[in-house]
Amino acid sequence: MVALNVELGTRSYPIHIGRGLLDNPDILRTAVSGRNVVIISNETVAPLYLNKVRRHLDDLRVGDIILPDGEQYKTLGTLESIFTQLLEGHFDRNTTLIALGGGVVGDIAGFAAASYQRGIKFVQIPTTLLAQVDSSVGGKTGVNHPLGKNMIGAFHQPLAVIIDTETLDTLPDRELNAGLAEVIKYGLLGDAEFFDWLEENIDTLRARDHHSLAYAIKRSCQNKASIVAQDEREQGSRALLNLGHTFGHAIETGLGYGQWLHGEAVACGMLMAARLSGELGWLPTAAIDRIEALLLKAGLPVTPPAELSQQRMRELMAIDKKVIDGQLRLVLLRDIGHALVTDQFDPAALDRVLTPSKAA
Amino acid sequence: MVALNVELGTRSYPIHIGRGLLDNPDILRTAVSGRNVVIISNETVAPLYLNKVRRHLDDLRVGDIILPDGEQYKTLGTLESIFTQLLEGHFDRNTTLIALGGGVVGDIAGFAAASYQRGIKFVQIPTTLLAQVDSSVGGKTGVNHPLGKNMIGAFHQPLAVIIDTETLDTLPDRELNAGLAEVIKYGLLGDAEFFDWLEENIDTLRARDHHSLAYAIKRSCQNKASIVAQDEREQGSRALLNLGHTFGHAIETGLGYGQWLHGEAVACGMLMAARLSGELGWLPTAAIDRIEALLLKAGLPVTPPAELSQQRMRELMAIDKKVIDGQLRLVLLRDIGHALVTDQFDPAALDRVLTPSKAA
Repeated sequence: MVALNVELGTRSYPIHIGRGLLDNPDILRTAVSGRNVVIISNETVAPLYLNKVRRHLDDLRVGDIILPDGEQYKTLGTLESIFTQLLEGHFDRNTTLIALGGGVVGDIAGFAAASYQRGIKFVQIPTTLLAQVDSSVGGKTGVNHPLGKNMIGAFHQPLAVIIDTETLDTLPDRELNAGLAEVIKYGLLGDAEFFDWLEENIDTLRARDHHSLAYAIKRSCQNKASIVAQDEREQGSRALLNLGHTFGHAIETGLGYGQWLHGEAVACGMLMAARLSGELGWLPTAAIDRIEALLLKAGLPVTPPAELSQQRMRELMAIDKKVIDGQLRLVLLRDIGHALVTDQFDPAALDRVLTPSKAA
Repeated sequence: MVALNVELGTRSYPIHIGRGLLDNPDILRTAVSGRNVVIISNETVAPLYLNKVRRHLDDLRVGDIILPDGEQYKTLGTLESIFTQLLEGHFDRNTTLIALGGGVVGDIAGFAAASYQRGIKFVQIPTTLLAQVDSSVGGKTGVNHPLGKNMIGAFHQPLAVIIDTETLDTLPDRELNAGLAEVIKYGLLGDAEFFDWLEENIDTLRARDHHSLAYAIKRSCQNKASIVAQDEREQGSRALLNLGHTFGHAIETGLGYGQWLHGEAVACGMLMAARLSGELGWLPTAAIDRIEALLLKAGLPVTPPAELSQQRMRELMAIDKKVIDGQLRLVLLRDIGHALVTDQFDPAALDRVLTPSKAA
């Protein structure tokens, strides 16, 4: 087992990574605070892991809230149903929420914890690769709005993140690949050596080799924890973690939430960011080709959906949390392993990248 | 003009109190940050003061969102409509929200600011006495749930609080009286000298003497700022500010939001807390009589609504943010000017206070 730490002063917390951690009663019990616990999961994950988690908590009062599965349910409406169930169950401010599932469950349970009775404690037990390497770490929580992804939320750090890599055994291939997009992101934005390693090991990862997956998760979490410790509330460098996300969020919102998986949209978005960086003369063609090749080997889409026109993509990208005073800012690449946030790009170059035929 | 300060380290902010402050362009301009501003107000207040505020901001992009007036609209649904309007207007993360109105507007606009794009800046311009002395200061924001008042929200401090006492000139008598309930609360919970002053000056306050009102607002804000500075997130002493509120919230939720004004329910709740303190032998009858007399002179209700039975009140009070591990805690009185939070009370004594005929 590996334990990393997210260094945030009084809000610091551990990330436990290992195979079979859900069979270890101590890790979860140490993380939970108080006598009342509510596990928030979804219809897919609960039948697999809910009882595994519950059995370690049998001396506490434990409730559960099971959500429908999918990004399309990451809404204020679902959030309200969580509050209703918490209040009907008389769960007070001293309750700990446990998010058991993927990124959607973690984001919505985290925002429920941030805002129920003005803030209660929560623990992340991510069960998808995407949630394990990215969304469960760093305290970003929230829900979608029909007009924009993750537009409503809070920064609210968990008490602990518990990553049992055994949960990946039941993950569908498409979800595994989507998680690899965020893994590749860490190499691209600041860890060229990791990108090289991923090029060497992508087939092994897709074959679910335990050691390779554990290494990729650990290295991704180290990268994320380091960036979050420097800039918890995204005043600066944390924005680099959004590489590919402005393009990706536009795809997710434009197609309707749940059509493309988040990781798929991010993969395509990262290649669009790389292509724009190439158009600006910042990134050589060879590097763009390496990025495209790795994404393709990871089973990820690299072509934006044909039904989203250049104009529609620009409209959708204009609603983004990185827009300041009306000016779009993007995470672009100077090299593999070197990203930057900038509003200095030629709009015509962006348009070329957004044109479906050009991008394909 | 008086300026107090809420001392919260990097989140410190000023409270400006004075007559005609909305005619002073500098105060508002100094408080606002960025090029985009959205004023959130309601149908009653906007016709009176919206243009007064807007004219100082004419070099910025200014939007407005006008809500229906009343506690019954302090919901997640209203919150969602605010997010929709902000997104449709392309208001980005660098936007400042201005809450222009009473406690409902301040609470919901504050929570919108706390959660829009994971947190944007906001300024409080409270226009009711209740909001000026209590809800606009201290960063508590949120909305109601049908099962419990203020159950969903966040701590999110404003950039500034601007109190123009001239706005009280247009306040209906019933609203003025409701605000006096929170003023009296500060005397009761920790400032016996202020309670004496209020007994002397209650008629002058109700007659809207400017100097008396300004003094009462300043002294209330001083009390609140001092308590909030010690305990921003209500880990301890801040709970004293909830004197009368567990009873009061039960009345508001039980009757349906908007039937009694918040201050009216708090007034009745404070006398119930005093009576329970008397039942426990902590507070002499003479003190209870003084409290009742002052509340009556302030035009406030002191008898709980007959339609809420003892049993119903207990059910409603069991959903309260001060409940810990199933145990109800209440703010009770050792003396006028000396409150404490305790779970050490005889349930039978509470039942006697909750029995409508006994309480009357």
